Amino acid sequence: MDYCFGIDIGGTTVKIGLFSEVGEMVMRWEVPTRKGNDPSGLLKDVKDALENCMSEKKIAKENILGIGMTAPGPVTADGVLHNAVNIGWGAVCLAEEAEQIIGISPVCIGNDARVAALGEAAFGAGKDAKSMLMVTLGTGVGGGVVLNGHILMGESGVAGEIGHMTIDPYETETCGCGKKGCLEQYASATGMVRAAERFLKKTETESVLRQLEKVTAKDLWDAAKAGDRLANEITDFVCDRLGSAIANAVYLVDPEMIVIGGGVSAAGEFLLDKVAKAYQAKVFAHSRNKKFALAKLGNDAGIMGAAALILSKTE
Amino acid sequence: MDYCFGIDIGGTTVKIGLFSEVGEMVMRWEVPTRKGNDPSGLLKDVKDALENCMSEKKIAKENILGIGMTAPGPVTADGVLHNAVNIGWGAVCLAEEAEQIIGISPVCIGNDARVAALGEAAFGAGKDAKSMLMVTLGTGVGGGVVLNGHILMGESGVAGEIGHMTIDPYETETCGCGKKGCLEQYASATGMVRAAERFLKKTETESVLRQLEKVTAKDLWDAAKAGDRLANEITDFVCDRLGSAIANAVYLVDPEMIVIGGGVSAAGEFLLDKVAKAYQAKVFAHSRNKKFALAKLGNDAGIMGAAALILSKTE
Repeated sequence: MDYCFGIDIGGTTVKIGLFSEVGEMVMRWEVPTRKGNDPSGLLKDVKDALENCMSEKKIAKENILGIGMTAPGPVTADGVLHNAVNIGWGAVCLAEEAEQIIGISPVCIGNDARVAALGEAAFGAGKDAKSMLMVTLGTGVGGGVVLNGHILMGESGVAGEIGHMTIDPYETETCGCGKKGCLEQYASATGMVRAAERFLKKTETESVLRQLEKVTAKDLWDAAKAGDRLANEITDFVCDRLGSAIANAVYLVDPEMIVIGGGVSAAGEFLLDKVAKAYQAKVFAHSRNKKFALAKLGNDAGIMGAAALILSKTE
Repeated sequence: MDYCFGIDIGGTTVKIGLFSEVGEMVMRWEVPTRKGNDPSGLLKDVKDALENCMSEKKIAKENILGIGMTAPGPVTADGVLHNAVNIGWGAVCLAEEAEQIIGISPVCIGNDARVAALGEAAFGAGKDAKSMLMVTLGTGVGGGVVLNGHILMGESGVAGEIGHMTIDPYETETCGCGKKGCLEQYASATGMVRAAERFLKKTETESVLRQLEKVTAKDLWDAAKAGDRLANEITDFVCDRLGSAIANAVYLVDPEMIVIGGGVSAAGEFLLDKVAKAYQAKVFAHSRNKKFALAKLGNDAGIMGAAALILSKTE
């Protein structure tokens, strides 16, 4: 039996999974993230963790097919990871360094959002689809495009960054990225709160939201589900922007299905329905019938996608 | 030596090319498009044309690697061509019918805009790029995405239809597709004329365009090149919309280069420069450095892309 490791490098912990060659998770654990000017310290910790695991499970090095690893920043086509600011690294050839320090080849890396999308495609909501668009609604809006089991990484590392699509050319406020009118300004948790504040200010409509000192995205969706009229207007507006961005994505990559993940997707089928309806209003008739689904893997999407980086290469 | 045929089905003529296995065009000719309720008549004409060619060139059937063919409408992933309204067909399995009638296999088909993009990627402006976005500025706005030598066709046949990306959620006029705010409403030849008319109406600015009874896209670009201030404001507006759509496409597929084709691209480097600058204002720093180029193949992009449908399969 052959195995691979899937490694998800986060700001606080490094999640590690041992997977069988058919993609079953055999073991899953975490080590603290060692920060530094370069990845060498963190990679030494990973090396120790993997060697302990292999000795415990009596797995020989030649039975490890490779290591998949998420990279906490954009990765350009030359394999360089840029701006891993959360961890403190500069530009770094993460896969090469990892191969040298850990002593296992190949190490395949990919931007964390893209790898999480691959995880959903390989093992989660998109398991039976040939192609998939993932949209992650969290503090920001992330995403990924998976075609025939392979994640689209892009030349400059931004393939799948649907959150920074320009959706409104007349927006006056500036997005975290420096541009104006990005999807993220409307469909991230923060963007939804901003939309709620705007609607609350510009209308007089009664709403349970007016009783709250500070509205959160969860409050907004809870109120909408409970039938609050203004909350439904606000979520309709947000979903219109999101549906438009998803339609734009379909006009480029036309995947079989769309998977919605991230913290805000906890609003569940109610949110999914609104997004799907908004999408359908924006596309040609024969493109309306896309499957929409909620992400399934939660926090394990990263290590599972990392494993898929290796396993999809050995098909 | 092996060969393939590339066939481009247009509303008036069917263009046919004979290509060597390394992609050289050996012969190129046209036959009139026979219209009908189904493709059988047209395919019989094609069969005769190909057989004449093979007998003239003394090429045996076993030396034909296959036939690539453009389809004049959207092709869904199940191989069905829909809405070939120009020619009169209903939904049809074009590749299967062609294989049966012509007696050569395989026949590979793809939507005409997508196949033309593949032509530019394989033999034209994108020859040295690994991945490419093509944008065709003509009566409408078309496009295609080529990744690693393969054209993205999409599940519902709309991959690459950048012209129907929603760019302006506040647009009040309706696009030919029935939606509002599509890129095509600003960046097609018709869209540019519409923009010119709007600017001429809402401003008093002096302009050579005011002396014309009816402004065309060519007039607009000629005036802009000659330094006309209003014409430059209008083309800047159009390019801002186009740059925004290309940036949105980069945030999804992040190709190595962008190729601009179609009748309006006759405005040349002047147009290309404006589009590239508008694009650069809409993306992250490390995605700014994309190659922009004008399409090279003109009317032969279809037959050449059709040949690439076969030759890229036999790599």
